[in-house]
Amino acid sequence: MSKLTCSEFKSGRRFVGRLPHGQDLIKSIETFCGETAVSMATFSAIGAVTSVTLGAYDQKQQVYVTYAKEAPLEIVNCTGNISLKDGLPVVHAHILLADMHGKTIGGHLFSETIIYAGEIDLLELAGKPLERAYDTTTGLMLWKGLS
Amino acid sequence: MSKLTCSEFKSGRRFVGRLPHGQDLIKSIETFCGETAVSMATFSAIGAVTSVTLGAYDQKQQVYVTYAKEAPLEIVNCTGNISLKDGLPVVHAHILLADMHGKTIGGHLFSETIIYAGEIDLLELAGKPLERAYDTTTGLMLWKGLS
Amino acid sequence: MSKLTCSEFKSGRRFVGRLPHGQDLIKSIETFCGETAVSMATFSAIGAVTSVTLGAYDQKQQVYVTYAKEAPLEIVNCTGNISLKDGLPVVHAHILLADMHGKTIGGHLFSETIIYAGEIDLLELAGKPLERAYDTTTGLMLWKGLS
Repeated sequence: MSKLTCSEFKSGRRFVGRLPHGQDLIKSIETFCGETAVSMATFSAIGAVTSVTLGAYDQKQQVYVTYAKEAPLEIVNCTGNISLKDGLPVVHAHILLADMHGKTIGGHLFSETIIYAGEIDLLELAGKPLERAYDTTTGLMLWKGLS
Repeated sequence: MSKLTCSEFKSGRRFVGRLPHGQDLIKSIETFCGETAVSMATFSAIGAVTSVTLGAYDQKQQVYVTYAKEAPLEIVNCTGNISLKDGLPVVHAHILLADMHGKTIGGHLFSETIIYAGEIDLLELAGKPLERAYDTTTGLMLWKGLS
Repeated sequence: MSKLTCSEFKSGRRFVGRLPHGQDLIKSIETFCGETAVSMATFSAIGAVTSVTLGAYDQKQQVYVTYAKEAPLEIVNCTGNISLKDGLPVVHAHILLADMHGKTIGGHLFSETIIYAGEIDLLELAGKPLERAYDTTTGLMLWKGLS
């Protein structure tokens, strides 16, 4: 692929609300999407966690390297989307966290990441949902069928 | 609360513009919302500051720990929302900053934070505005009345 | 300027898709905007790069200080907009990156910044596009004609 490829969407429903205390960040969003029949969306969130699991993609080995940190941290920003993988709505999100001294860590968001409190702004994208498939160049599950 | 709880909104007016040089970041947004009768919104901003006041929530003591830094810093990202507290539009935002070497600090945004220059994208959310109330679990002022 | 000044826009087309592997981040967005006739937009992106060029504005000297880093890094967040400079759609974006250990760097995004993989959510803003002009206070190319 040598240029930016997209699908065009209309704005669907916009949900703004609270992330659940004591629950997993990714799972709570995926459960919400399952219950409200959202299969394609973008979202951002801010808040705080009590623990986090982060990762980065090892581009040479083509595997995710992950690590967990048990600490009270602010969610400075979490940016992500929901699309279909094997027919189910899955979250892909990156997250930035900060401690009491403003020191930051960030990366690809994994479960378990336990919410202390948080606020999410999620926009459903109306149109044909994008689906993830294995990409041979990067080894990642990327959106297919774009033009 | 054991699951993600939301209200649904329609898109209201979308304002894109400049943050005022030499003014406080939070106050300039709240003043704008007061003057344009925006009581519920989400926004993101990028730009630069001449000084910043940041904080993080001490989850054990249930108080915010804050600190100020007088330095020219890039606003790498500022993500936030406007909703009602005691009937008035208030900003809740988190911010990430970077210095000349790319070194970052981030956290909960407080006043005083003085703008050098910046650009904001603010979407009014049409519908019943969310209101903040004291949450006994976290000690935070969280949105009430969600389902 | 002593207060937040804005233009009001309607939502235009919303494009969600993939950033092109091996291409420059800014140029791929600007090329897309040229080809789809987008002259005003906001966007966010997440993903990964193989190299990045970052900068910060030296507020005293009124010049950008830039530096490049050749390394596989996650794009934790990239927030930006498209508007007109000299009649052409140009990107203004800030970016935050993280390495394998979650260590972050961030700042103003420059070319060359080479994409490994990434996902973009770009909203066209319908209305009179904003145009950049030299601002004597800051030395930056800021939006003119706001009220």
